[in-house]
Amino acid sequence: MYRCILSCILPKMTTKTRKTKDIIGLVKPAVRGLAAYHIDETPVRVKIDAMENPFLLPEKIRREIGTAAMRSLINRYPDPSAKRLKQAIARAWKLDADRMLLGNGSDELIQAIIMAFGGPVLAPAPSFVMYDISARALSQKVVTVPLTNEFDLDADAVITSAKRTKAKVIFLACPNNPTGNRFSPDAVRKVLEKTNAVVVIDEAYFSFSGKTFVPFLKKHPNMIILRTLSKIGLAGLRVGVLLASKEIIGELNKIRLPYNINTLSQAAGLVALKHWRTLNAQISLLISERRKLYNALLRTPGVTPFPTETNFILMWIEKDATRVFQALRKRGILVKNLDRPGPLKGCLRVTIGTPKENKEFLAELHKIISKS
Amino acid sequence: MYRCILSCILPKMTTKTRKTKDIIGLVKPAVRGLAAYHIDETPVRVKIDAMENPFLLPEKIRREIGTAAMRSLINRYPDPSAKRLKQAIARAWKLDADRMLLGNGSDELIQAIIMAFGGPVLAPAPSFVMYDISARALSQKVVTVPLTNEFDLDADAVITSAKRTKAKVIFLACPNNPTGNRFSPDAVRKVLEKTNAVVVIDEAYFSFSGKTFVPFLKKHPNMIILRTLSKIGLAGLRVGVLLASKEIIGELNKIRLPYNINTLSQAAGLVALKHWRTLNAQISLLISERRKLYNALLRTPGVTPFPTETNFILMWIEKDATRVFQALRKRGILVKNLDRPGPLKGCLRVTIGTPKENKEFLAELHKIISKS
Repeated sequence: MYRCILSCILPKMTTKTRKTKDIIGLVKPAVRGLAAYHIDETPVRVKIDAMENPFLLPEKIRREIGTAAMRSLINRYPDPSAKRLKQAIARAWKLDADRMLLGNGSDELIQAIIMAFGGPVLAPAPSFVMYDISARALSQKVVTVPLTNEFDLDADAVITSAKRTKAKVIFLACPNNPTGNRFSPDAVRKVLEKTNAVVVIDEAYFSFSGKTFVPFLKKHPNMIILRTLSKIGLAGLRVGVLLASKEIIGELNKIRLPYNINTLSQAAGLVALKHWRTLNAQISLLISERRKLYNALLRTPGVTPFPTETNFILMWIEKDATRVFQALRKRGILVKNLDRPGPLKGCLRVTIGTPKENKEFLAELHKIISKS
Repeated sequence: MYRCILSCILPKMTTKTRKTKDIIGLVKPAVRGLAAYHIDETPVRVKIDAMENPFLLPEKIRREIGTAAMRSLINRYPDPSAKRLKQAIARAWKLDADRMLLGNGSDELIQAIIMAFGGPVLAPAPSFVMYDISARALSQKVVTVPLTNEFDLDADAVITSAKRTKAKVIFLACPNNPTGNRFSPDAVRKVLEKTNAVVVIDEAYFSFSGKTFVPFLKKHPNMIILRTLSKIGLAGLRVGVLLASKEIIGELNKIRLPYNINTLSQAAGLVALKHWRTLNAQISLLISERRKLYNALLRTPGVTPFPTETNFILMWIEKDATRVFQALRKRGILVKNLDRPGPLKGCLRVTIGTPKENKEFLAELHKIISKS
């Protein structure tokens, strides 16, 4: 009797278990080896870990967004080419809407580039993690080339490595995340000229550096530029911007999902960009806060901030950085912990917050450091 | 002198031209061979080409959506797991939120599945075009198996073909687009049991058929189900829904972009799903309109509508279907022209519109057909 029950249950269980395993065995090895993108969702008082603009838009503008959302025909598919939003972005940044493609965040554009050109994908290290994650998710090889000791691009090493590995795409975040600096233009130019790969200059932090490689586009057909609305205060809308030759745009257009920018993000983006001056005033304030925070960190014993042209500061902590990170989090302040063996050992990354948030962060940091 | 000027200009021009060509040469062959997804953007009075729900939400609900949008923190990144929206969808459709993944439309989910499992990708023909486009965009082989003469699934042919080609993923739209019918459950079950591939049942039109393969999920770990909020009146939000075992969800979660569902779509989706009864009433009205339209088409000389469990009707036109399509468009009515050599020769697809739109479509169709 007992045996019968077992034999009735067991085979089923075994079959199910085996089949589940089989299915996971069907997953491409590169994907199986991936870890999901880690997002720290600890609820905190001061969230300065993710390069978000800490300022909400003024109520007047948010009301306008509400009205635009209310009027949106969400029962219909969105404008597949997001024409009006592209034009508004082109106006704001003085770009050419005809050589522009929008993505569901730059993330989607990074993915589309790798889908179109394949791998190996080359990126300096340390740099933005999504280049690596996207390449692996697409089962493409990743090649990394260390930055110099000053976190600058080692152009010769990149060129040699690109040739040796036959890299198809090179991602250069400029300014770079998580280091914060902008690579020297000569090094970037050298990579553009001396490799056969598609070179993607990711200018996500353009608004905080004010410097751009856009003029290079005309001379270098192997170049793609990425921008985003995320860092200037519209992270929730998920709008990434890609600039390239019409030929490259044409190819990538075939790959991007036909309705990739939803109706409400198009509508809200249009409203927000009408108020470009407000967004710019927020950015100016953040830039001046960045200087204050940077100077304050310089004066903090045992802390070394690195130069930045972004809305964040990378800093090296003499004492145990992970413990400082945890102590900050315990006090309701979330920064990004980058303290792992390698070039960022002992480093934390802090996003520029509101003046009040920055003060709070500094005060808690001082307390933690003087205690330990 | 003249020669000098030429030699100064020409080499540059040649380099630029050559380089542009080289870059396009770097694009993967499968991508180069792709055509972008075609969307007819003719402005028309009656747009019944794209399976949209023709009803705007009532003003009260749209106001609520406006308020939700106004209150959204669009300066922050969206909830990466869209937890509350998933729970609302799970409640509405009586599903398990823990075995659910959302995408930027089903399109993104189709892409993620192919990224995870690779190709060849098998789909019956005719079926939803995005399976084919996504597979090619990811440089994967596509295998098609014709439907039977009754547009049903030819299970034996699918199984044989899947084995021969070692297909990794099989897409079955059920009900099927553009034919409108639901495949016989026995044929679907046979494919599930007799292949080693991942079988994706795309239930985009579930709300219009009321029948589902969800109970099959427990027994078949090689199964994925897709749903979408697009056909029930929220196409603009771009929310696709994927159901599968926790193991498959875990793998696909690594691939999907971390912030793929933007803040406003999450907020608006939550509001709309609170008014599930309103959405359902619209669907019921569309289903009763479908019956009326179907019967009217049955009575129309020279027109043969095919049985449907969706919000559209495929119909065969005895006379030149493309000319009928063009004549309709000239009169401000946009349907989908499927009239190409092959099983859909002579066919048009019409989405169920509002009662007024359906009447207008019928009236114009009758005029056009009696004239020609």
